Amino acid sequence: MNEGPLDHLIRMLAGLPGLGNRSARRIALHLLERRETLMQPLARAMERGASEICACEACGNLDSISPCGICRDHGRDSAKICIVAQVSDVWAVERTGAFRGRYHVLGGLLSALDGVGPEELRIDLLLRRMEALCAPVAVPAGGFAEEEKVQQNFEVILALPATVDGQSTAHYVCDRLRKYPLKISRLAHGVPVGGELDYLDDGTIVTALNSRSAA
Amino acid sequence: MNEGPLDHLIRMLAGLPGLGNRSARRIALHLLERRETLMQPLARAMERGASEICACEACGNLDSISPCGICRDHGRDSAKICIVAQVSDVWAVERTGAFRGRYHVLGGLLSALDGVGPEELRIDLLLRRMEALCAPVAVPAGGFAEEEKVQQNFEVILALPATVDGQSTAHYVCDRLRKYPLKISRLAHGVPVGGELDYLDDGTIVTALNSRSAA
Repeated sequence: MNEGPLDHLIRMLAGLPGLGNRSARRIALHLLERRETLMQPLARAMERGASEICACEACGNLDSISPCGICRDHGRDSAKICIVAQVSDVWAVERTGAFRGRYHVLGGLLSALDGVGPEELRIDLLLRRMEALCAPVAVPAGGFAEEEKVQQNFEVILALPATVDGQSTAHYVCDRLRKYPLKISRLAHGVPVGGELDYLDDGTIVTALNSRSAA
Repeated sequence: MNEGPLDHLIRMLAGLPGLGNRSARRIALHLLERRETLMQPLARAMERGASEICACEACGNLDSISPCGICRDHGRDSAKICIVAQVSDVWAVERTGAFRGRYHVLGGLLSALDGVGPEELRIDLLLRRMEALCAPVAVPAGGFAEEEKVQQNFEVILALPATVDGQSTAHYVCDRLRKYPLKISRLAHGVPVGGELDYLDDGTIVTALNSRSAA
């Protein structure tokens, strides 16, 4: 079928996540009414993004430089690494401003259903990173206690989703990291801040009960 | 502030109608995971659309040629013209397949609040079109009845939204068209097909009652 440029544009827009035919038509008209101020700049921003944005070779985060801005930031605590599934999770944690360490983006979750195995994820890279991080540094004779102390400071935080795939991935990563002298932690499960008990699922309430803390 | 290409792309996407920051981030990641297959083709489709898609000089519809495909289609009834506010309304009527005439896109609605006057809309063009359409054709002496017959076949259908602005625009256009020998009609108002009376506003029910037809 001979598809015109307008139908072609609408069909491509309708394939984006969260958009359907109606919203794609609306966006196409919005763009066509603003060709110089929006449509062409957006096209250029996409071209530029496609060629300039790359995955950080160290952590997998997206940035225009590699290593990324977070890995380059010397003000961050390199002894704390937060393991997340997606780049959007890096953004979510960064928005809180509560974490000043570095990240490791797995690039997905293990999934038997979707056929995603460990080799599809950035797990080997994580192990190599841990290897380098935990490598015994040359210490003067008798300085064993000092070396031990440095290593015990390393912490890996598993910030993976509380889904079946997320938790099985966390379990697998945890297993692979056991051999390194690291502290491994995971995000707390419980009642979301602002959440009403009545609207929560049973699993969350049970977890929150079991993980209760002294008031 | 020095904005990176990723933040720039997300900010531009977030400005599109129906999208916010979260959906823009999601779309940006989706695009970056499919650079060759989606991101660059979409950028090219936008560039191409911005340069190739134009408004039809006759009716104002968007197409890659002018006059547009609908105005060029000789299978369509040129004696019936459907007046709509937006190009998306042309698409909405076309999807039904129930109208085989031509269109005239006003490009908006009269609005005192938004300061849209008749000169902002494609109303002059409509009048010129009517002028050409209703111009008395040269008829042989005594052929008056024949000419009259041709002219009475012309029909203008006002398919403008049932809002305050839509109805005042319809009123204005109707007034301006009175001097031409045209039949002027408008879409019926009433209960939408599949609509429950209980969920309809009072105005619609009153209109449907007043316009009731023999069962």
